Amino acid sequence: MKNTAVLLIDCPDRKGLVARVSGLLYEWGANILHADQHRDQDLGLFFMRVEWELEPEDAAGSSGFDLSGFQHAFASLAAELSMRWTLSDTRHKPRAAIFCSQYQHCVADLLDRWRAGELHCEIPLVISNHADAAELARFYGVQFEHIPVTSATRNQAEALQLQWLERRGIELVVLARYMQILSSAFVSRYPAAIINVHHSFLPAFHGARPYHAAHARGVKLIGATSHYVTEKLDEGPIIEQDVTRISHRDQVENLVARGRDLERIVLSRAVRWHLDRRILCYGNKTVIFD
Amino acid sequence: MKNTAVLLIDCPDRKGLVARVSGLLYEWGANILHADQHRDQDLGLFFMRVEWELEPEDAAGSSGFDLSGFQHAFASLAAELSMRWTLSDTRHKPRAAIFCSQYQHCVADLLDRWRAGELHCEIPLVISNHADAAELARFYGVQFEHIPVTSATRNQAEALQLQWLERRGIELVVLARYMQILSSAFVSRYPAAIINVHHSFLPAFHGARPYHAAHARGVKLIGATSHYVTEKLDEGPIIEQDVTRISHRDQVENLVARGRDLERIVLSRAVRWHLDRRILCYGNKTVIFD
Amino acid sequence: MKNTAVLLIDCPDRKGLVARVSGLLYEWGANILHADQHRDQDLGLFFMRVEWELEPEDAAGSSGFDLSGFQHAFASLAAELSMRWTLSDTRHKPRAAIFCSQYQHCVADLLDRWRAGELHCEIPLVISNHADAAELARFYGVQFEHIPVTSATRNQAEALQLQWLERRGIELVVLARYMQILSSAFVSRYPAAIINVHHSFLPAFHGARPYHAAHARGVKLIGATSHYVTEKLDEGPIIEQDVTRISHRDQVENLVARGRDLERIVLSRAVRWHLDRRILCYGNKTVIFD
Amino acid sequence: MKNTAVLLIDCPDRKGLVARVSGLLYEWGANILHADQHRDQDLGLFFMRVEWELEPEDAAGSSGFDLSGFQHAFASLAAELSMRWTLSDTRHKPRAAIFCSQYQHCVADLLDRWRAGELHCEIPLVISNHADAAELARFYGVQFEHIPVTSATRNQAEALQLQWLERRGIELVVLARYMQILSSAFVSRYPAAIINVHHSFLPAFHGARPYHAAHARGVKLIGATSHYVTEKLDEGPIIEQDVTRISHRDQVENLVARGRDLERIVLSRAVRWHLDRRILCYGNKTVIFD
Repeated sequence: MKNTAVLLIDCPDRKGLVARVSGLLYEWGANILHADQHRDQDLGLFFMRVEWELEPEDAAGSSGFDLSGFQHAFASLAAELSMRWTLSDTRHKPRAAIFCSQYQHCVADLLDRWRAGELHCEIPLVISNHADAAELARFYGVQFEHIPVTSATRNQAEALQLQWLERRGIELVVLARYMQILSSAFVSRYPAAIINVHHSFLPAFHGARPYHAAHARGVKLIGATSHYVTEKLDEGPIIEQDVTRISHRDQVENLVARGRDLERIVLSRAVRWHLDRRILCYGNKTVIFD
Repeated sequence: MKNTAVLLIDCPDRKGLVARVSGLLYEWGANILHADQHRDQDLGLFFMRVEWELEPEDAAGSSGFDLSGFQHAFASLAAELSMRWTLSDTRHKPRAAIFCSQYQHCVADLLDRWRAGELHCEIPLVISNHADAAELARFYGVQFEHIPVTSATRNQAEALQLQWLERRGIELVVLARYMQILSSAFVSRYPAAIINVHHSFLPAFHGARPYHAAHARGVKLIGATSHYVTEKLDEGPIIEQDVTRISHRDQVENLVARGRDLERIVLSRAVRWHLDRRILCYGNKTVIFD
Repeated sequence: MKNTAVLLIDCPDRKGLVARVSGLLYEWGANILHADQHRDQDLGLFFMRVEWELEPEDAAGSSGFDLSGFQHAFASLAAELSMRWTLSDTRHKPRAAIFCSQYQHCVADLLDRWRAGELHCEIPLVISNHADAAELARFYGVQFEHIPVTSATRNQAEALQLQWLERRGIELVVLARYMQILSSAFVSRYPAAIINVHHSFLPAFHGARPYHAAHARGVKLIGATSHYVTEKLDEGPIIEQDVTRISHRDQVENLVARGRDLERIVLSRAVRWHLDRRILCYGNKTVIFD
Repeated sequence: MKNTAVLLIDCPDRKGLVARVSGLLYEWGANILHADQHRDQDLGLFFMRVEWELEPEDAAGSSGFDLSGFQHAFASLAAELSMRWTLSDTRHKPRAAIFCSQYQHCVADLLDRWRAGELHCEIPLVISNHADAAELARFYGVQFEHIPVTSATRNQAEALQLQWLERRGIELVVLARYMQILSSAFVSRYPAAIINVHHSFLPAFHGARPYHAAHARGVKLIGATSHYVTEKLDEGPIIEQDVTRISHRDQVENLVARGRDLERIVLSRAVRWHLDRRILCYGNKTVIFD
């Protein structure tokens, strides 16, 4: 069971940022577990992630870290230094929903990792435009909503989806090979909180049928990409990518099969890093604090 | 010292192709070392590479394989079966020229591998639009021609280049980060015999300054691609690709440095496979017989 | 639905082997889909895999390939040329059993791939010394046998396991992180038909707790290995290996988590290749016809 | 041209370490470029690397960072907190010697990278027990000493080597496939300052002829490892490792050829990281601050 606080910061770079932040944490008695900084020298930006303990493991008589007191104090510092920041208490598990289509390898993989304790979240909801994953969701004890989508019914379908997301208090939407394009209105409701997997090494082969395009071009490696969804299709900040070697012997159906392994891995990594507050978005890129 | 024959075949697929070819080789007494076939089922095409010994190692009194006799016999078979084919005697070393710019890591790598015996060819000629590689070429005992190129002088420069290629009997041109675009007229003189390295994972980031583009897009892997040059820039048949993992910590200059390792490897593999007659082009793709 | 025959051959190398085999297939009218050969020049051995169609897809009036007739004819040729060989009709799906422990990621992965059609087999049986996987097996409609094992009861447990394997007609046993050592007597019942996954890059870190050993040694990559089980622990013929990069930031529990992805991939590849008759064992090594 | 200071620290973990170090740097006006920390929670150890500017780029009227003043102040803090530490001025280029044998691919690669500016050091000396690399050293303008070694003359040879190392003020010794075992006496003179490349994925296949051993075992990947040399052969702290996929088609000579690419890469990375003060040794492991 996690029992830490995580502070994510980005701000204009200047002298003394690490000293100011770590000084304040020291003052409040934080026992830092991990700290990592990054400077983008071209853009003059500073990024930081700090994680510290909230309660000592052998806490007899100890009062623990005063998180709300610290939050108040830090807000002043952050304002002074023009910081954007989020402070998370990892004892709270984020609530995630999975969207899928008839392709079930990614949703099955995420649910299996969730059960194995790899993903630090609640998963109260699976939504699909196909009925296929109903049984799988039931096996993992997760509510399944079958919401068909056609071009004519997209708006109503999205309204229904959003209703369920709200009712279940969803904070993260994972598109596990969902295969439908979400409207700008939908996307704007979950900024940097919708993760998609695209079955190519972006920016190569964006759009539909990337394995067919890869086969036609005769590439020697195929890839998969997980990214945050923005209004521009396949152009959101990339979180993770991986590739695997293929040869002239691989027909399209082989690419599809081999790609499934890539998709599972890049999507599950992205979800885990998001849940562990390891990702900072800036511009159209990500910093991954590993 | 190599001492084999290599037969490369492509033709419309039909029953009995392996039997006919291997039967003829058996008839002529060939001792086959490697044989590999591939069928593209979508296109109905058949590809084959066979390599066999020309002279036995302990050849006392032995007369060796009758290559010209076999060639004559095979020509009839090939005509009957509508085969495109090439028959190579590996005792003949192909003659390669290297084109380079001020960036010398690829030309240095190729010359070092050549000296180490990895590349089965002669390299009588290095041509560059910069003077920098002169000393390097001299160290390896290779003629160096400094032929500056501007947009105004491209035609004369290419004429001079072609003159040298002809005089030196060049059969393969390797563009080792040459950074100049060759004219269609030049390219058409060396069909499937000009190998280029592009410093990205094609088709992503074609054109100029791919490392800058990769950095701007925020990809998590960078790549390099070796390919045959055709009239369409960066769109020729891909021979080899490789990638390496990067992170937000890598600025453009790091991408450039790490990319050099990729470029060396994908270019040298392409050259070696070409020299070993392991590559068959069809459409805009390659079969690599490994 | 598969509908092909696969012939796997190994024998002492000599001239004309490809010609003889492909000639016979041609004579019997085989439409070859894939053919691959390999020579181990050091050992003077020849290996071959050929796959051809049994019934044409648009079979109106066609009688199909005469497999038993061919088998009879080939047996003579094989005897003459001292071949070891197996001829498989892929319309028959091999029957596989999965053995697992409390660690369920590999068994869950195999069952999911099986359902998705990636594994060409029947899976009628899961056996475990823990009860944990019962629900999972039930979800996939597979019989689950909970057979506890202690050092005192190993013999009886194995007797019971073998009984179930026989009753269900099992031809392949997959040890999906089973964590128990099988007796020589058990192993000898399934020669080259028990596949294990070891959670290290063999031969490094054989034996127990390889992730702990890898962490202690400070390696920069961890790996996983799938192999056929022989009487010598972790020393059977290697089928597949893969690795992933780690750093000083990874504690043992991270290695365990990241290793799970490797284990799933190397084990499932091994099982698929075995089922597709792509593996030939010789000495303590494998030829993988890909 | 580099113009920074690098501080490497390791000490028992306790609260406030980052705050104390970054606070002192802030007090002295340091403009931090990179900072990275790591905690080994099992061992209760803390590791830190900080790099900051020494002179502003547009230094009109600016006096720069007072490095010796800071060093004095930091020494007190370090004593109080039981820190082991090194403070480096990157305007000083370390002096490295390369030892090689008849195999020249690694020494050629290092010298080429050095010329290209990838390695921030001086290389005044190449020592070999073979004469082969003389010409190569001359090409790069580096002194070459041919010091033959036999088991009978090892002691005298090492005495002569040490003499040259001292005369040339060598701080780092790179064994670029040197193939000779150094005595404990020699090794103890350069603690954590001799880098070797071993042509296997350690700890697999330590000792002689690892490619032969890998071929005999039938592994599916081969590797290379760079590490600091300690008194125990092939057991020093690992700096970097990499692997490449092989198949049954690769004979030993192919493994050797493909391994050369791995060796070049893992050795050159190790040397670069060492020169950039990115490596901290503890116990028998390394922290690589990337």
